[in-house]
Amino acid sequence: MSTTAVTGWPPSRQEETKSFLQLHNLRAWIVWRPDELLMLSGYFPFWGASLLIYFADAEPVLFVPQIEPRDHIPGDLRVLEYPWGDLKCGDPYSVLVSAVGDQLAKNGVNAEQAGMNPGAFRASLPIQAAEQIPIPEDFAGHLSTLAAKRNPAFANLYLRKTPQEIDAIRVANRVANIGLQAFFDNSQSEATEAEVAAAVESIIYRQIGCDGIFHSRAWAMVQSGPNSADAGRFNRSTGRRLTNGDLVVIELATCVNGYWSDLTRTVAVGRPQSEAAEILDLARDAQQAAIDAIRPGISAGQIDAMARDKIVAQGFSSFFTHHTGHHVGFRYHDPGFLIQPGESAVFEPGMVITIEPGVYVRERGAGARIEDNVLVTDSGHEVLSRMAGTGGDQL
Amino acid sequence: MSTTAVTGWPPSRQEETKSFLQLHNLRAWIVWRPDELLMLSGYFPFWGASLLIYFADAEPVLFVPQIEPRDHIPGDLRVLEYPWGDLKCGDPYSVLVSAVGDQLAKNGVNAEQAGMNPGAFRASLPIQAAEQIPIPEDFAGHLSTLAAKRNPAFANLYLRKTPQEIDAIRVANRVANIGLQAFFDNSQSEATEAEVAAAVESIIYRQIGCDGIFHSRAWAMVQSGPNSADAGRFNRSTGRRLTNGDLVVIELATCVNGYWSDLTRTVAVGRPQSEAAEILDLARDAQQAAIDAIRPGISAGQIDAMARDKIVAQGFSSFFTHHTGHHVGFRYHDPGFLIQPGESAVFEPGMVITIEPGVYVRERGAGARIEDNVLVTDSGHEVLSRMAGTGGDQL
Repeated sequence: MSTTAVTGWPPSRQEETKSFLQLHNLRAWIVWRPDELLMLSGYFPFWGASLLIYFADAEPVLFVPQIEPRDHIPGDLRVLEYPWGDLKCGDPYSVLVSAVGDQLAKNGVNAEQAGMNPGAFRASLPIQAAEQIPIPEDFAGHLSTLAAKRNPAFANLYLRKTPQEIDAIRVANRVANIGLQAFFDNSQSEATEAEVAAAVESIIYRQIGCDGIFHSRAWAMVQSGPNSADAGRFNRSTGRRLTNGDLVVIELATCVNGYWSDLTRTVAVGRPQSEAAEILDLARDAQQAAIDAIRPGISAGQIDAMARDKIVAQGFSSFFTHHTGHHVGFRYHDPGFLIQPGESAVFEPGMVITIEPGVYVRERGAGARIEDNVLVTDSGHEVLSRMAGTGGDQL
Repeated sequence: MSTTAVTGWPPSRQEETKSFLQLHNLRAWIVWRPDELLMLSGYFPFWGASLLIYFADAEPVLFVPQIEPRDHIPGDLRVLEYPWGDLKCGDPYSVLVSAVGDQLAKNGVNAEQAGMNPGAFRASLPIQAAEQIPIPEDFAGHLSTLAAKRNPAFANLYLRKTPQEIDAIRVANRVANIGLQAFFDNSQSEATEAEVAAAVESIIYRQIGCDGIFHSRAWAMVQSGPNSADAGRFNRSTGRRLTNGDLVVIELATCVNGYWSDLTRTVAVGRPQSEAAEILDLARDAQQAAIDAIRPGISAGQIDAMARDKIVAQGFSSFFTHHTGHHVGFRYHDPGFLIQPGESAVFEPGMVITIEPGVYVRERGAGARIEDNVLVTDSGHEVLSRMAGTGGDQL
C-alpha cells in the first residue's frame, strides 16, 4: 500500500465546476439533490428541499426552506429562505421557482445559458432519511423554463475528489471502521444477523457530536451461513442465528456529514469448513491483487482483471457475476465508470473507488466479499478504509 | 378510548381497486413504488425495482429483477423475472418495458385503457433503504407509451385500510412501542441525544426474525432541552447531553414489513421547570381532546380545532404552526387530506391517522409533541399506538 501524498491533485472544486460551465457555454447550473449540493457547496441538506444556483461569474445562491436547520450551512454561502411547513405558507415550490427566476434575471442569465440535471431517480439521502420531501411532479418542468440546458458531462465532476473531500471521506471510513469493530465483536454464535447489524448501526449513530460529526448514519446488512451465498444478489439481515463454522458477510453503507463509505467484510464464526475457508481466502486474494495494481494510468478493466483472473484461475468464474467496483464518496454509489471487464477508462489521482470482488457458492452454503475504499494517488494508491487499531485493518 | 370493532369496513382491497378501475374505464394500472406495490399486492420489495400490472379482469402480474429475494413474495402472485445485476444483462429496464408491453398485449389492453402514477418524488423506502435503485430517467416515459392514463383518484385508495392492513399497522406500532420503551429507559441525564436515538433504532432492528417480522427499521430523532423547541421545524439528534429539567422529544418513524407507524413522545428528565411542564401538559391535553372526538362523520377540521382551541385558549397559538395530523400506514406520511384548520373532509371507518399537536417555545427552551396513530372505527376510534406494558401507554 502506497501512502504517498497526492501532488497532482485535481483543481479545486470551484475551478473544476467553472471549467465545466465555460466549456459548455453555461452561465449557471442549478442543483437540489443532496449529493449535488454537497459537491458544489460543501453543504449537506437536512430536508432535501434546498436548491443552489451555481453561477459562472458570481457567488452561488442557496435557497433553503424556512424549516431547514441553519447551523451546518457553510458561513460564506449566501442563503435565501423560502416559506415551508407553516400553515399559512401556501405552495412553497411556486415561491421557490419564482425566487430562482429572480436571481437568474438579476444576473442576466436566460434559460439557454442555464442548465440542470432534471432526473430524480437516484440521489444521496438527506439527513432526514426516512422519506423524501414531497417535491411536486411538475417541479423540474417549471425549473426547465428557467434552466433549459442538459449535460451528462456534469456527472464527470463526481470523479475526482479534492483534498478536502478526501479528508471528509476519510472521516466516513474512520466511523465505518468503528462499526466494523462492532461487527467483529458481535459475530458470535447464537447472535442473530439482525442483532449484529443493529449493534453496528447503533455505534455509528452514536458518533454524532464527536469531532465535528453532525450526521452519522449506517445501513448494515449481515448474512450468515447459507445466507452468505446470497450476498452477491442482495444484502439484508434476517433472524437467523450465527452458528459455528459460518461465514458472515457484512455490507456496510455509512454516511457521515454527507460523505459516504461503502465497505464489506467477511468473517468466520469459529473454524469454517475447508470449502468455506477456500472461498474466503480467494475473495481476500482477489481483492488484494486488484488493490495492489491501482495507480494512475491503469484502466478499470485491467484492475477488474487482476481480481477476476484469480477467481477464474481457481475455477470459480461463475460465482463472481458482478463488477469489481465503482466510484464512491458523494453517494453510496457515485456516478462514473465501473471497474468491470473491458472498461477502458483509466484512473487519475483523486479518484476514490471501491474494490469488492466476491465469491458466492450456494452449493457450499457460503459466500465471501471483501470491499475497501481506495484513493488513487500520484504514484499508486492509499486504502482509506483500513486503519490500524480501529478494526478496519482486519480483513 | 373506544375499542369497538369495525363492522362497516371498507370493501376488500381487491374490490376497491377494481371499482377504481371500472369507474375510470381502465383495464389495467401499473405500479412500482414500494407503497403502491404493498397496497395492491401485499408484497413489499427489497430493491424497489419490481413492477406490478393490476388487471381489472385478470390476475395481477409481478415483475421482479433477478437479484430480488423471493421468500417474502405472496405465494399466489404470478411472478416474472427480468435480468439484473449480472455482468451480461445489458439494460434491464428495456427488457422490463418490453415484457410489460407483452403482458398488456396478451390481455388485449391498449395504452388508453391502462394508467399509472408517473411521479417519482415521494414513496416509501424499500427494504434496501440506503440508496434508490438507478431507475433511468426515461423509464416513466417509456412506460407511458404502454399506459397513457393518469388519475389522481388513485391516491384515494390509500385512505381506508382493510382489516388485514390494520393488523399489519398494529404490528408496526407494537414494534415501535418497544422502541419507545428504550427511549423512556435511556432518557437519562448525561446521555447524548444520538445515544438515546441509537438505542431506539437498534432494538427495533433487532425484532427481525420475531413473529413473522422480516423487515424492521426505524428512524429515531431525539431533541432535548433547547433543541426540543426546534421540534416543530425539524427532528434530528445531536451530540447534546441530556440535563436534569430538560424536555426530551422523540420523533419515531418505524417500518415493519413495509407498514409504517409514526409516533412522538415527550418526557422530562428529572423535574422540569414549571414553564416547560406547562408546555408538556398542554400538548398532552390538546392531543387527548382531539383523539377523544374522533368518530366517523366528524371532519378533519373539527378534530384539528379540538386540539388547536386548547392551545389557543392557553395563549400559545403562535407556537403550534403545523397541522394536527395526516394519514399513515403505507408510508410515513400517506397521501390524503390533512387534519388542519378548515378541512371539510370527514373520517370514515378504516382510516388511520396521526394526531400530533405540538407546542414549541424557543424563549422557554422547551418544546413538546405527543403523537399517536388512531384507527377510525364504526362508532369511534381505537388508538393503535398505546399498549399496556409496552411503554406506549406512557404519555
